[in-house]
Amino acid sequence: MTQKIYNTALKSNDRILTGDRPTGPLHLGHLVGSLQPRVELQRHCPQTVLIADLQALTDNGHQPQMVADNVLNVVADYLAVGIDPGRTTIALQSAIPALSELPMYYSNLVTVGRLSRNPTVKSEIRQKGLSESLPVGFFTYPISQAADITAFQATLVPVGEDQIPMLEQTNEIVRRINSITGEELLTECRPLLSHMPRLPGTGGQAKMSKTLGNAISLGAKPDLIQKAVESMYTDPGHVQVNDPGQVEGNVVFTYLDVFHPDKSEVDELKAHYRRGGLGDRKTKRILNDVLQELLTPIRERREQLLSDRTYLIEVLQEGSMRARIETNITLQRIKASFGLDLLGELQLTQH
Amino acid sequence: MTQKIYNTALKSNDRILTGDRPTGPLHLGHLVGSLQPRVELQRHCPQTVLIADLQALTDNGHQPQMVADNVLNVVADYLAVGIDPGRTTIALQSAIPALSELPMYYSNLVTVGRLSRNPTVKSEIRQKGLSESLPVGFFTYPISQAADITAFQATLVPVGEDQIPMLEQTNEIVRRINSITGEELLTECRPLLSHMPRLPGTGGQAKMSKTLGNAISLGAKPDLIQKAVESMYTDPGHVQVNDPGQVEGNVVFTYLDVFHPDKSEVDELKAHYRRGGLGDRKTKRILNDVLQELLTPIRERREQLLSDRTYLIEVLQEGSMRARIETNITLQRIKASFGLDLLGELQLTQH
Repeated sequence: MTQKIYNTALKSNDRILTGDRPTGPLHLGHLVGSLQPRVELQRHCPQTVLIADLQALTDNGHQPQMVADNVLNVVADYLAVGIDPGRTTIALQSAIPALSELPMYYSNLVTVGRLSRNPTVKSEIRQKGLSESLPVGFFTYPISQAADITAFQATLVPVGEDQIPMLEQTNEIVRRINSITGEELLTECRPLLSHMPRLPGTGGQAKMSKTLGNAISLGAKPDLIQKAVESMYTDPGHVQVNDPGQVEGNVVFTYLDVFHPDKSEVDELKAHYRRGGLGDRKTKRILNDVLQELLTPIRERREQLLSDRTYLIEVLQEGSMRARIETNITLQRIKASFGLDLLGELQLTQH
Repeated sequence: MTQKIYNTALKSNDRILTGDRPTGPLHLGHLVGSLQPRVELQRHCPQTVLIADLQALTDNGHQPQMVADNVLNVVADYLAVGIDPGRTTIALQSAIPALSELPMYYSNLVTVGRLSRNPTVKSEIRQKGLSESLPVGFFTYPISQAADITAFQATLVPVGEDQIPMLEQTNEIVRRINSITGEELLTECRPLLSHMPRLPGTGGQAKMSKTLGNAISLGAKPDLIQKAVESMYTDPGHVQVNDPGQVEGNVVFTYLDVFHPDKSEVDELKAHYRRGGLGDRKTKRILNDVLQELLTPIRERREQLLSDRTYLIEVLQEGSMRARIETNITLQRIKASFGLDLLGELQLTQH
């Protein structure tokens, strides 16, 4: 499966790092774009999923509680869709000191000029209207991301095209560290690009996003799902049931393509819609049924998980502990290579 | 004593943070400007002396081994001059994760614009000729310094006038954290300014500095001390022994003022030099005797200490361990106040 939808074949020694900023509940866009792939990928190679609370704080520094409140929701989302903590390490960024320590070393090897020219940072600055008032943490987050990737010695990072410059920045740091230490301490990573198109928002926008209010979250109640489907963007030219309708750009059909289990039935519906005689009320009812069937078990597992906060914390604790050990190995190797391991035993035995 | 030479009286609950970048052996300028004050201050209040290897890396990222090689030399310098590890916590910055973790939180509360306008950073950029090629770590080091100060809940920081903007930056962060959390989590600090003039370099330059080659290091061998004294800048108008000589700006007399134990003898020498008849060879011989007497026991203790690397490491380990516990308290309080202490026990019990 993986070869077909990705730009690169998985190698036997690949290690994946991926994650989410805990700024809200995950939604259908995440399910298709990152969660289902993770459920598949965890069967093939070691995978760490980082709940990037520190990164979420880079533009939410004034509302840390909002970030904190979303952490366990995200863990519940993960488990509800089938990410298996026995196969995938689920870890909390702020609980892993090496992810804060490595940037201290890396940031001396990246210039202010280089960071300013990072296309992803530049475009995010444009989108978010920051600039002079840009928080330093937001400006420097490519360095923190390089720390995350290299700390886990990840070789594959699932990203969108727009995130490729981030991986280039990471690989520059990898080469600098290896050149300074004269050892192959760190490994370059490559992007894992999916050929799957991005799920549009319910209003037809390019991207489903909580902030745009066009998302169906994984925990959405049945009536919310139904309301979201009923308000979906279809074909504005398709006024009467008997009018011929357009399928392209019609969000209901985009979703049916993605979520309906029977492709031939979708093809029939499309043909019918195109020639006229199939109303939006009908297609929306079909889509609603499909989504209710998809989301009901996820929502139920999610609710059950959220009612057992202790279990979610345990899962996150165990994953974070594993992540600590792994990332500390990378940190200690760099420190040793720098000669800064004088107090090495202190690092390993106590906090 | 402390009231006379400082801008502020020590309070009973003051806590001092100070330190050095381990980029070379400490010298007479450090002895007068910071080491002797520390020996005095450690009798009055809790004091942490940080060996700031991470900060040293901010403009030595390409030569970490140089920084590493100087760490134990600095510990030996401290102990040789009488800094008492029983009274003063001597700690290694890179061995204390909280000092890397706190900047991750603080850097979201400082804008890129604010950092660029930091006068100390601006002037250091000018001096070192960086700018576009400025390492990010160097650009952001005021945030790291704020982390150092606040992590130890320091209230007094011995600095030069030029470093006051750094403390203002720190106090801004303190107020931001306290305002976000709605608690008095962090305490503002104040500068401890010394009225003692800075020791000039042997060539008469404003500052003694290893890089300028005008420094007498604490471990200097007798012949090196003698050579340094013999080459000292005196009064270029004082050609013949019988010529009247000038004492002001004459480095030999500046040093005699600072280091000669008998002030009345120095006054006599000055009078003699002014009216003529006292040669530079004679004043230099006297200064050489004074410095040899001062530095011989320091050098001997230093050599003895450096021959017992294990002991130096133990001292640094013990201090760093204590510093870890102290700084972790500050970090955990902030995380708890942010709601990011979900995995709190993990932080405290294991690495």
